[in-house]
Amino acid sequence: MSTQSRIRLGMVGGGEGAFIGAVHRAAAALDSMFTLTAGAFSSTPEKAVRSGIALGVAPERAYPSWQAMLDAERQRPANERIELVAIVTPNHTHYEIAKAFAEAGFHIISDKPLATTSAQAADLAAVVARTGVLFGVTYNYSGYPLIKEAAALVRDGAIGDIRKVFVEYHQGWLATPLESSGQKQADWRTDPNRAGIGGAIGDIGTHAEHLLTCVTGLQIHSLCADLSSFVPGRKLDDDASILLRFTSGAKGVLTVSQICVGEENNLTLRIHGTTGSIAWRQEDPNQLTLCALDGQRRIITRGSANTHPTTAQATRLPSGHPEGFIEAFANIYRSMAMAIHARRTNSPHQPDYPTLHDGARGVAFIETVVQSAAQGSKWLPFPH
Amino acid sequence: MSTQSRIRLGMVGGGEGAFIGAVHRAAAALDSMFTLTAGAFSSTPEKAVRSGIALGVAPERAYPSWQAMLDAERQRPANERIELVAIVTPNHTHYEIAKAFAEAGFHIISDKPLATTSAQAADLAAVVARTGVLFGVTYNYSGYPLIKEAAALVRDGAIGDIRKVFVEYHQGWLATPLESSGQKQADWRTDPNRAGIGGAIGDIGTHAEHLLTCVTGLQIHSLCADLSSFVPGRKLDDDASILLRFTSGAKGVLTVSQICVGEENNLTLRIHGTTGSIAWRQEDPNQLTLCALDGQRRIITRGSANTHPTTAQATRLPSGHPEGFIEAFANIYRSMAMAIHARRTNSPHQPDYPTLHDGARGVAFIETVVQSAAQGSKWLPFPH
Amino acid sequence: MSTQSRIRLGMVGGGEGAFIGAVHRAAAALDSMFTLTAGAFSSTPEKAVRSGIALGVAPERAYPSWQAMLDAERQRPANERIELVAIVTPNHTHYEIAKAFAEAGFHIISDKPLATTSAQAADLAAVVARTGVLFGVTYNYSGYPLIKEAAALVRDGAIGDIRKVFVEYHQGWLATPLESSGQKQADWRTDPNRAGIGGAIGDIGTHAEHLLTCVTGLQIHSLCADLSSFVPGRKLDDDASILLRFTSGAKGVLTVSQICVGEENNLTLRIHGTTGSIAWRQEDPNQLTLCALDGQRRIITRGSANTHPTTAQATRLPSGHPEGFIEAFANIYRSMAMAIHARRTNSPHQPDYPTLHDGARGVAFIETVVQSAAQGSKWLPFPH
Amino acid sequence: MSTQSRIRLGMVGGGEGAFIGAVHRAAAALDSMFTLTAGAFSSTPEKAVRSGIALGVAPERAYPSWQAMLDAERQRPANERIELVAIVTPNHTHYEIAKAFAEAGFHIISDKPLATTSAQAADLAAVVARTGVLFGVTYNYSGYPLIKEAAALVRDGAIGDIRKVFVEYHQGWLATPLESSGQKQADWRTDPNRAGIGGAIGDIGTHAEHLLTCVTGLQIHSLCADLSSFVPGRKLDDDASILLRFTSGAKGVLTVSQICVGEENNLTLRIHGTTGSIAWRQEDPNQLTLCALDGQRRIITRGSANTHPTTAQATRLPSGHPEGFIEAFANIYRSMAMAIHARRTNSPHQPDYPTLHDGARGVAFIETVVQSAAQGSKWLPFPH
Repeated sequence: MSTQSRIRLGMVGGGEGAFIGAVHRAAAALDSMFTLTAGAFSSTPEKAVRSGIALGVAPERAYPSWQAMLDAERQRPANERIELVAIVTPNHTHYEIAKAFAEAGFHIISDKPLATTSAQAADLAAVVARTGVLFGVTYNYSGYPLIKEAAALVRDGAIGDIRKVFVEYHQGWLATPLESSGQKQADWRTDPNRAGIGGAIGDIGTHAEHLLTCVTGLQIHSLCADLSSFVPGRKLDDDASILLRFTSGAKGVLTVSQICVGEENNLTLRIHGTTGSIAWRQEDPNQLTLCALDGQRRIITRGSANTHPTTAQATRLPSGHPEGFIEAFANIYRSMAMAIHARRTNSPHQPDYPTLHDGARGVAFIETVVQSAAQGSKWLPFPH
Repeated sequence: MSTQSRIRLGMVGGGEGAFIGAVHRAAAALDSMFTLTAGAFSSTPEKAVRSGIALGVAPERAYPSWQAMLDAERQRPANERIELVAIVTPNHTHYEIAKAFAEAGFHIISDKPLATTSAQAADLAAVVARTGVLFGVTYNYSGYPLIKEAAALVRDGAIGDIRKVFVEYHQGWLATPLESSGQKQADWRTDPNRAGIGGAIGDIGTHAEHLLTCVTGLQIHSLCADLSSFVPGRKLDDDASILLRFTSGAKGVLTVSQICVGEENNLTLRIHGTTGSIAWRQEDPNQLTLCALDGQRRIITRGSANTHPTTAQATRLPSGHPEGFIEAFANIYRSMAMAIHARRTNSPHQPDYPTLHDGARGVAFIETVVQSAAQGSKWLPFPH
Repeated sequence: MSTQSRIRLGMVGGGEGAFIGAVHRAAAALDSMFTLTAGAFSSTPEKAVRSGIALGVAPERAYPSWQAMLDAERQRPANERIELVAIVTPNHTHYEIAKAFAEAGFHIISDKPLATTSAQAADLAAVVARTGVLFGVTYNYSGYPLIKEAAALVRDGAIGDIRKVFVEYHQGWLATPLESSGQKQADWRTDPNRAGIGGAIGDIGTHAEHLLTCVTGLQIHSLCADLSSFVPGRKLDDDASILLRFTSGAKGVLTVSQICVGEENNLTLRIHGTTGSIAWRQEDPNQLTLCALDGQRRIITRGSANTHPTTAQATRLPSGHPEGFIEAFANIYRSMAMAIHARRTNSPHQPDYPTLHDGARGVAFIETVVQSAAQGSKWLPFPH
Repeated sequence: MSTQSRIRLGMVGGGEGAFIGAVHRAAAALDSMFTLTAGAFSSTPEKAVRSGIALGVAPERAYPSWQAMLDAERQRPANERIELVAIVTPNHTHYEIAKAFAEAGFHIISDKPLATTSAQAADLAAVVARTGVLFGVTYNYSGYPLIKEAAALVRDGAIGDIRKVFVEYHQGWLATPLESSGQKQADWRTDPNRAGIGGAIGDIGTHAEHLLTCVTGLQIHSLCADLSSFVPGRKLDDDASILLRFTSGAKGVLTVSQICVGEENNLTLRIHGTTGSIAWRQEDPNQLTLCALDGQRRIITRGSANTHPTTAQATRLPSGHPEGFIEAFANIYRSMAMAIHARRTNSPHQPDYPTLHDGARGVAFIETVVQSAAQGSKWLPFPH
């Protein structure tokens, strides 16, 4: 992409010591469709500026705070100012920052969860409806090519009507009170003031819900959730088991844990329909299993012939050349880039990234799960 | 084993067209510790006799009915009559047959479920307590060597205190109304009159509960079950999702299905403790994964060095030479044979097979699951 | 099978402490088609008798030597004497024993290698041609159901014309001088006086050659072999790498090792044709991978629908219920039983077990490999 | 990395329709350590310029030919001109281009094979020795973190002295005469005028040799190669089977194919030592198996605790978040960037990327393999 046409990206958060900010930058860099132009990379002003310079941002655009960035960038001429703002801060700040930039007309790509309450999510939706900015949420696992294939297979009827869905997202890195050691990632994720009401359910459970929904197209009707905080002293859940009923009559089981010793980042989706089934594991993302009623079991590999066009478009390398987490994440950025280019030229465009709507549903999911658990693991309706 | 010392085995059920009867016979034959001496192999007298003769039983001991077998065998001198009766009939008849033979002093090996109600199970327990016969229940999956290894690892503290357990038993063979086609296996399993109150939960869910309990040693405190009958017209459940709470504070998820297209006989157990985890899959039974808190992941293979003595004893072949379902089943028979030999000589013996107690708990499990589901997937205490 | 119609089996070797004898007995017992009637279970007379009695053979037929067994059994009336002799002794004795029993009209099932020289193999072939006895060789890996499926797929043209074949048989149990410790299995296998001219190549390489040939139907045209004895002091090869050229123009690579630390019993076959490919691993024998030119990759499981009739006949259990090494071995016994029954009734019968012809080719293979290696890994023609 | 300190990258080849050029650019972009500043992206001048502009290069630095780029860039001041030239053209042009740029003092990163003859490689080595430029060769598979782990494990003695090595690189995409269809990748790779004397052996066999050598540290003593051209009409080899002997006494088997239907990019390395073994598959690159003599089998995952520092440095994401081909490729670029930064400041630096030396050995390997095959698969010494 010619330099002029690259999209000017600003970032809030993601400075020294952060994890996800670096992933966003790698994802944005991979296809050379973005230029990291400005940033407020930390809530500590000196660190924010220092990080920005280290990351190659022009010193005058390495801002000490996101408010300063907002003020300065909105003053710049349209052909200079940042176009897309990536929000990669702890959960409790997403809403405020997103709202401010959306009000000012900047496009947004925000980490999940979108907000800490459904009221905030609704407020954000109102702002976005008014200003018309593009808004993406980094449910990054939906960027995997074979997740697009799975969704296309379901849509095309390859497995018939869905009856039962299993989605699990199991990690083990919080099996000990890692937050006591000052480890940064553990620290804020287990702190209700920064993470919100959900622990594991907010950190990774919402990814599981999104993956399930975006592949199956099912709508949750009601759910029954059992949350646990297994590690002594932990204030938020570190484990969740959830029974799901869908409006179609299908049923599901969604389990989430960060205390499953031995698990690294095991996000697995299995969908059983009347005439077939699909299985996919994030840790082995370059293949998908498709079974038929007669027992025929096919392995579909990323990059192989005969996949759906949306799958092929989300693929950079031939089959057998593994793509991974960053490439999937980069697909979210690439989809946003295409939407922004369409917007530049007022072309019609169908978004192919997780939207504010997905983000709002994710917040409602966390809320409903926490409420069900608080009421003794009672069945509750899921608003939609 | 010298011919004289082989145990004389009688069988009820398992004639022409049956599946599990042939497995019992192969399991009993494998180690040449039993002689199939008598049988009432069908509820249809002619078929029973014909099957017995075809199976090599002496014509006079190929009985037309189990009652005839009971009458005749009890008349025979002790050194001639059958010693162990294998009950491989449809579920609803287990209790009656087992009770009659136990009353008469024969040892029993019965298919699961032990009975159709807890009252029957309690009655059987009383009879067995009175007559002192040995009573095994073919929770055959517990016969796999690496299941013995898993149980030994848990007992020895290799994974610390258990927090979360996942057990799933997923099949797909009943995804269509196979019972309408007259297929014999599907026919009785989906018929409440012969299968009892549980469909999938009674046929395979009880295996999952037993495997979980025998490996972990945990006691279920309460459960919340959602049962479904996905195939139109089916009278019993063909799918179950169950949340478990254990008396120790651990939690679990047990899922069972016979409509999961693509699944063959996927019984999988995953146990996460404070310091480690264990995973095992029945379809790949010759290896077990043991993970430690520091991320170290070990594959333990059946037959390899350094396994627990009980594992090694349950192993016939060197590592890399696969053992399977029949070998595991045969381990139940072998354990019963050892118990019977100990009984012959009045030697002390610790049973290493699933007992009446396991069978009774299995019946209670089915009952509680069905009740929970009937009450809108409500949490119910599990009696113990 | 009714007791009368069971085949009377005699065994030479396989007493206390032996490994393969027990496998033969389990394989013969599994389907209740044989009765172990006589045996000379050791070359040490007392041990032979003691083993026979312990194994349930009538004391008068627990012979002190195979010569005694031969003398006595041939005197017995036809309806009493053993029909099939299993030879499970160390390699150097196979020929002499097989010849003696074949001369006397007994059917034979012999361990591989058939003999220690091609001259012996030719002599045996002449005897068998004259007496007409049935002669099987326990190339047991060919008994796996999915090996039958692979052969059927090749025959049916599912992968087109074969171009390249990879077969490997890697073990690690002889990575140390285990023979110095007196371990019985290691001891005779590494001793040229008992094992013959081949070490690993004779013990397991010949299995690899047979599997390759029976599945592909290819004929070896010439070969180039590099043999090693990696363990200091070892007299026979413990590792072999062999390039193969077939008469059809196809090529192959066959590797064999007993010093591959970490390998248990890794016998793997991969066949690439012009339009497809097949892969199978003995350690995971219940599935086979079939790929097509367009990248479609299918997993075929044992017991699943749509397999070839010969595969289904060699299958005892439904899919997902693992079968293993003993079941495959038992398929060789079952095939011999069917051949013997056909012989009893003079019915036409197509043998479905490895024959003397396969055994003789195996001996030639070992000889040619050893000669090639001895001549500096030179290409040599393979006689056929 | 601040914009000023980014390394200015020029590229030769890799324009419209090319595959590997895009991979180089993604690899260079991933860590934001390079700026693509100039290029001669095609041998067709118009296409070269058009591609450069489309890729965001300033129009005056989107050169019509590499000679024009060389002339113009050497005129620019040191702080403007490109520092590193990536050569991603067909094989036959590598030497000429590399030599010209190296003579002019530019650092080089070249695709393999380095040259088409050992004489060319020696000439290049002389130029580089004289000018002192840094020279990397994209044996990109050595960039995988777990390959660095494997090499460290071998160096640290984790598997003892190596006895046997298996390396295979199997693809299936050239199983048909794809070159006849005009497919660009197939076209030049099967054309001796552009690919050189090696087909599959030059395209991927040299990767296999490099991986083997860089992990094991072994030196090939002699080899015996059998090459085939299975696809009718193909002028170069599409399949190779090679026996290896190492100077240490170890032995190896290296197989390469592009006609293995069903294989995508299966590069697998297995190393067996006296006390342990290592196995790794490129298609599943985030795990490595390490076995010990006692049968203990460990799975080491990328990103997990306790890996070697060089492995950890080559890792961007936590365990369970898959990295793939591009990340490994980017590690070569990152290592070159670090070397260039060290050179800028005259700091001592140990190169951690494949060098000219590796490239020259790769050329010798191709030559020796082709000669061995041409002489009837004769054993030939390997020069070193």
